[in-house]
Amino acid sequence: MERIPILKMGPYLLVTIQVDMHDRLAMTLQDDLTERISKTGSRGVLIDISALQMVDSFIGRMFANMAAIARVLDAEIVVVGMQPAVAITLVELGLSLPGIRTALDVERGMAMLGKSLAASTLPTPGDDGSGEGDAGPAE
Amino acid sequence: MERIPILKMGPYLLVTIQVDMHDRLAMTLQDDLTERISKTGSRGVLIDISALQMVDSFIGRMFANMAAIARVLDAEIVVVGMQPAVAITLVELGLSLPGIRTALDVERGMAMLGKSLAASTLPTPGDDGSGEGDAGPAE
Repeated sequence: MERIPILKMGPYLLVTIQVDMHDRLAMTLQDDLTERISKTGSRGVLIDISALQMVDSFIGRMFANMAAIARVLDAEIVVVGMQPAVAITLVELGLSLPGIRTALDVERGMAMLGKSLAASTLPTPGDDGSGEGDAGPAE
Repeated sequence: MERIPILKMGPYLLVTIQVDMHDRLAMTLQDDLTERISKTGSRGVLIDISALQMVDSFIGRMFANMAAIARVLDAEIVVVGMQPAVAITLVELGLSLPGIRTALDVERGMAMLGKSLAASTLPTPGDDGSGEGDAGPAE
């Protein structure tokens, strides 16, 4: 396995981590993700780690790095699907993942991104709002 | 890695295959997918194989099996992200993946599922459509 695929799902990017991350794979993922965010203009990235049974401080740092990179590109990272044992290990390692949002599964993560992006986006000028006021035509 | 995660994305399920499939992993995936389809009532499954650099007849059979299982559960499988080299190998192996639909990437696969499911679903009774088709009444 040379690289972890990054899937574009509508306005978001989805990364599923299924294998043990080693240095080179993590660096490649970081590079790929940076490039994809800038190329697609995605503002939300979901990282699914439901297949990870254990983590170490290396993974913790990787998430922190990716979140920092995403932030300067005006994107947001949500880590989803964390196993209970992984959460316990992270806390025991003293890694509280500052600045990284988490959600129980992909659907909740998407909903979270949708809400936070909607809140940060200005309303579009050409809003197709209800123009009932125009019922009387200007003749 | 004991199992490949199956992610629920709205009405669809998404499976990303990143590792070499061996017998037991394939059987586990088949079982898991069957259970998830029946539990969630999903009618579309996307299988992303963009990380696969090569295939063999075992993978080909696995796809055929999963498609057959999905079909009897009234779901549809779309294989997305196939690498050009993989497509060439499949044809050289004589595996044309009968009954399996393919798309270039996840987004196109979703669009394909959306269209085919919309076509196979009965129109809702409260349909808000404008009845322009009724312009010429059969009198």
